[in-house]
Amino acid sequence: MGTPPSSNQGPGGPNAAAPAAGLSYRDAGVDIDAGNEAVERIKRLVATTRRPEQLSDLGGFAGLMGLPKGMAEPVLVSCTDGVGTKLLVAIAMDRHDTVGIDLVAMNVNDLLVTGAQPLLLLDYIAVGKLVPTQIEALVAGVVEGCRQSGCALLGGETAELPGLYAEGHYDLAAFAVGVVDRAKILGPARVLAGDVVLALRSSGLHSNGYSLARRALLEVGGLGLQQPLPGGDGESVGEAMLRPTTIYARAFAAIRDLPGAPLHAAAHITGGGLIDNPPRALPPGLAQRLDLAAVPRPAVLRAIAAQGVAEPEMLRTFNCGIGMLLYVERTRVDEVAAALAATGEPATVVGEVVVREPGMPEVLFAPL
Amino acid sequence: MGTPPSSNQGPGGPNAAAPAAGLSYRDAGVDIDAGNEAVERIKRLVATTRRPEQLSDLGGFAGLMGLPKGMAEPVLVSCTDGVGTKLLVAIAMDRHDTVGIDLVAMNVNDLLVTGAQPLLLLDYIAVGKLVPTQIEALVAGVVEGCRQSGCALLGGETAELPGLYAEGHYDLAAFAVGVVDRAKILGPARVLAGDVVLALRSSGLHSNGYSLARRALLEVGGLGLQQPLPGGDGESVGEAMLRPTTIYARAFAAIRDLPGAPLHAAAHITGGGLIDNPPRALPPGLAQRLDLAAVPRPAVLRAIAAQGVAEPEMLRTFNCGIGMLLYVERTRVDEVAAALAATGEPATVVGEVVVREPGMPEVLFAPL
Repeated sequence: MGTPPSSNQGPGGPNAAAPAAGLSYRDAGVDIDAGNEAVERIKRLVATTRRPEQLSDLGGFAGLMGLPKGMAEPVLVSCTDGVGTKLLVAIAMDRHDTVGIDLVAMNVNDLLVTGAQPLLLLDYIAVGKLVPTQIEALVAGVVEGCRQSGCALLGGETAELPGLYAEGHYDLAAFAVGVVDRAKILGPARVLAGDVVLALRSSGLHSNGYSLARRALLEVGGLGLQQPLPGGDGESVGEAMLRPTTIYARAFAAIRDLPGAPLHAAAHITGGGLIDNPPRALPPGLAQRLDLAAVPRPAVLRAIAAQGVAEPEMLRTFNCGIGMLLYVERTRVDEVAAALAATGEPATVVGEVVVREPGMPEVLFAPL
Repeated sequence: MGTPPSSNQGPGGPNAAAPAAGLSYRDAGVDIDAGNEAVERIKRLVATTRRPEQLSDLGGFAGLMGLPKGMAEPVLVSCTDGVGTKLLVAIAMDRHDTVGIDLVAMNVNDLLVTGAQPLLLLDYIAVGKLVPTQIEALVAGVVEGCRQSGCALLGGETAELPGLYAEGHYDLAAFAVGVVDRAKILGPARVLAGDVVLALRSSGLHSNGYSLARRALLEVGGLGLQQPLPGGDGESVGEAMLRPTTIYARAFAAIRDLPGAPLHAAAHITGGGLIDNPPRALPPGLAQRLDLAAVPRPAVLRAIAAQGVAEPEMLRTFNCGIGMLLYVERTRVDEVAAALAATGEPATVVGEVVVREPGMPEVLFAPL
């Protein structure tokens, strides 16, 4: 959790008695009081994410959530993801209040491409040694991400696992559930030749490719986390690498229910970059032409490429400045772009859907 | 995941191109081919958990699941949990195909106490180095747990995180969603003074208290994992410690919809043992009298106590032979017990719900 769960708020529980004489759980490396302190710190934060459909508060064995009203045939959409080795950057920077945003983003952005509205999220925080202020910072990030997404932080688990994680290390995973009316599910079946591809900008690396990013910048490039990022606007290498992943919930909310459903599908540019993800939005028989020149590449990505990562490896590992691709009815592009811009998420035309001729790749990188 | 997810089947993806010249993701310690091999090994297993309401197969950005028919007001129930340091026993034994059952059990048993039927589960597997056969074994356990629970393994994430986990180490987390008709939610509000408390047996340690169990048996007691368990029936210490957590899905299915709803509430005996969990099933003003003598304590728990863990610490750390407590309408106990026995889950009367007099603890351990 992070979140006073459900079955465990740390291995103790709110009314755990004082340790008995003899060999105890605390002797074995598990600190129940620290767990309870972390729970108290978290409760107020978590309460700010409450949704009207919610039936339970934290403390039960599981979280309960009703469904939004007015759906003809609600379909649950769910996914799970972690933050990957971006955590090692946060740990090295001793800055723990933003990776929770990344955690939510990685899950919620996956939900959004189905047309779902995010409903609830649960987090799993595993630590070598439980430090209440660190847990509070991690959960503060998760709560901020949930607020940006409009979903409730319904529960979670904080596990203190001495022996599995080094002291000071932790891992984060989250699970999100959204809901979509069956008739409104987005995806490949809706996409047509002639659809226009709109790009939403990424904020930087988002949460993918950090093993390569750290290798390129910190090892091969020999840069320190506190040094200014080469080609950047003054932020340090560490700050640039930690910049939170953009959450596109408000952008999708603005266009999801437009009459006539001009948004056909979307591709979250996550692990596998611009090679693996765009084809997941298209049906067999169609391909997409993408012109990346229209989207500026964030300085952190240019700095990585400058360390000898070739363009094909950049494309298959990083988002290259594009956090989300939207596949939109051609006649409605201006209207969709205007609705997106009104949410603060400017969209750029970067391509089009074409019939896939024999021998054509699924994604063709070429000027429009 | 374990499960070819959703957004990542390992950091590559099914159609990842060959590595480019120059610095690559593989150089940075992430093996995309191993990820893809793991996905192929998993797919067939996962397909066996498919439910009729399921709309998606693995590979999309998220998993899609309809709701069971015939519910007046469906409420989602969700929770997350991991296996804790039981994993260190599995790693030391090099036996990876049962901890997935524990993972499912820890989540599904939490869902069941609300009255929910388990619907879907997602897994998160984080490893230092991705070994496809190990991932396959882990997922085989998760799949077995899902089959025992009747829930679909709808997605997941396998994260290769060099630097966060030692080679050979891994962590598991899962997230489960169930559904219950609002009018049938179980819990404290239904419990009445006079209700009878039935116990369902645990199979052993289940998945709690392993830091103390390892300390007591392996360090203080100096036992080896391959040695026979003292007082056991011939199984080794390691086998006894790895015995999978019982999943009570079939037991609950047999009594959940009995006319008149004689099952009022339940308590999953998880972290916090018999001190913290039983009170979670009762409303303020009521207490419970429990007589533990009626339930035999598994040999592994007797062996732990023999190393100097006092009874109060045993009660607050371990399940002490009871995996689940059921709070049942007094006039219907025989009928409920018969329905449970028919599923292979014998129930034992261990207590009763009483009015809580001033100064009385929430749980009173006393002969009936």
